[in-house]
Amino acid sequence: MKLATLRASRPDGQLVVVSADLGRYVSAGRVAPTLQAALDEWERAAPALRELSDQLEAGAVSGQVFDPSQAHAPLPRAFQWIDGSGYMSHLERVRSLKGSLDSELQSVRPLIYQGGSDSLSAPTDPILVPTEDLALDFEAEAAVIIGAVPMNPSREQAAAAIRLVTVVNDVSLRRLVADDLQNGFGFFHAKPSTSFAPVVATPKSLGDRWRDNRLHLPVRVEVNGTLYGQPNAGIGMQFDFVDLIMEAARTRRLAAGTIIGGGTISNPHDETLPIKRDGIGFACIAEARTAEKAKYGRARTPFLKPGDRVRIAAGTEGGPAAFGAIDQRVELLPK
Amino acid sequence: MKLATLRASRPDGQLVVVSADLGRYVSAGRVAPTLQAALDEWERAAPALRELSDQLEAGAVSGQVFDPSQAHAPLPRAFQWIDGSGYMSHLERVRSLKGSLDSELQSVRPLIYQGGSDSLSAPTDPILVPTEDLALDFEAEAAVIIGAVPMNPSREQAAAAIRLVTVVNDVSLRRLVADDLQNGFGFFHAKPSTSFAPVVATPKSLGDRWRDNRLHLPVRVEVNGTLYGQPNAGIGMQFDFVDLIMEAARTRRLAAGTIIGGGTISNPHDETLPIKRDGIGFACIAEARTAEKAKYGRARTPFLKPGDRVRIAAGTEGGPAAFGAIDQRVELLPK
Repeated sequence: MKLATLRASRPDGQLVVVSADLGRYVSAGRVAPTLQAALDEWERAAPALRELSDQLEAGAVSGQVFDPSQAHAPLPRAFQWIDGSGYMSHLERVRSLKGSLDSELQSVRPLIYQGGSDSLSAPTDPILVPTEDLALDFEAEAAVIIGAVPMNPSREQAAAAIRLVTVVNDVSLRRLVADDLQNGFGFFHAKPSTSFAPVVATPKSLGDRWRDNRLHLPVRVEVNGTLYGQPNAGIGMQFDFVDLIMEAARTRRLAAGTIIGGGTISNPHDETLPIKRDGIGFACIAEARTAEKAKYGRARTPFLKPGDRVRIAAGTEGGPAAFGAIDQRVELLPK
Repeated sequence: MKLATLRASRPDGQLVVVSADLGRYVSAGRVAPTLQAALDEWERAAPALRELSDQLEAGAVSGQVFDPSQAHAPLPRAFQWIDGSGYMSHLERVRSLKGSLDSELQSVRPLIYQGGSDSLSAPTDPILVPTEDLALDFEAEAAVIIGAVPMNPSREQAAAAIRLVTVVNDVSLRRLVADDLQNGFGFFHAKPSTSFAPVVATPKSLGDRWRDNRLHLPVRVEVNGTLYGQPNAGIGMQFDFVDLIMEAARTRRLAAGTIIGGGTISNPHDETLPIKRDGIGFACIAEARTAEKAKYGRARTPFLKPGDRVRIAAGTEGGPAAFGAIDQRVELLPK
């Protein structure tokens, strides 16, 4: 079963069921007006949504053409967005940057931070930046949306809470990272609105592409039409989504609709940009730049500037995108 | 105008209008089902809520007895909770603690962090802790709930967005602060669910107790019936609520219903606990302990333990509490 939220007059949009090939949709309004409402009553809503999904696949309801540009973020505003850092090679590569962290900690527990969730971005929303000089970067990540989890949950409770899977762009302002981490109370200004793929899918609908509590799909990242990376989200993820949920709930319960990010997808290799056709590459610019510094003595790949386009989609080249594509253009905030 | 959210079957509770003396309430259901819904359409909702408030004060509607134990947090789950640190003397006192921060930064910009907002606590909810050894502390703060604010707002835009005022208990696990700040990505485990007073009030309804974008009221803190502090929230607040909103919106817009905390209230003085009847004291235990260390060479006041009660209320002794009282008991999470 795949779901999306279409833009609507109300801030939380309109929940729809999307066909497996993302070609068509049918309104889920008679089950739940919004995705949050469905997550609040998942035991009741999920079977009814699944029935709609079955009818759509069988042609029993015809539905309408699904236009990803009409999609909002699945939760246009969420009660919680927690981002983890599940991939060791991402941390290893960015540790050489200013503001890097204790190299010992990650092997014991995953790093997580509290992200802003009040204004999440649609897949085709512009990435708005207040000035050009903030070292704008993308971070392609897998993410899950969960049901309620009690404080200090068991591994079984955490695993059972995973409702939906998707990919996100954790937009990052690299120039503000060191300030946030070293002088302040943690990530804040460096992490503006996160962007979401148009579609979320149940783990079951992903078949063997969801196993071991990880998404086993390459996530392709293109900047201005050039491939920057296609690392596999299932490779090198030291801490899986259940680890991240358990870590997040150590001292607090998590409400239904909490979104957990797996961290910048990163596979170990010695490549630099441009990557070869069968290369792995990078899911963020910061990693590409540190690889370049190590190899050439200086970073070559520039951060994003107004007018640049970033496309992020999970799936093999030419194949269907499992969750549709994030496709955003960078824009400078109008004065 | 004063508002509250009563517990209801739905997760966001039921919006009610409360009388100025907090004695009676009337349902606001015909204006907006929840406080978030009212904030989403404030231009329409506020006049209608004010009319209900006027009718309640005039006796034109009789309403029902307001029982604070039936109150939920005004926003039982919010889309954003950002806590600032507006009071210099709080930072000066806690800087001597392990995990303290650069002493230069605060004079330039206020420190803020992204708090968890998915499960905010009611005024009489227990404070649940997973273990006894986490150095449990309270932090009495003033807070505002705002309307939507654009990225990089003007001072006028930020000021105009302040909708409602209240007090909160920013529950803190001191033992986890250094880990969160030094080894991780910022506050997370050290800041479990924040608790809220039962009532929120418009700035206008507070008269001259709201001026210069600050709350000018003493906030009384009692632990197990003993007065620990009554610092005035209007004194020593170097960065006011407009400064905090502008800082929070530097690289992102803020959605309606965002809650901004002013930081642990702290007035400069040389006292230690127990305080005299007309003393000022402390709005958190960490400050009392550092004052004791400076004076006696060791901290005397223990952190909170299961069974302890914390009461936080804004207002002069014996007078009415402007927002009602936060009155919580510490409980160990059942195994």
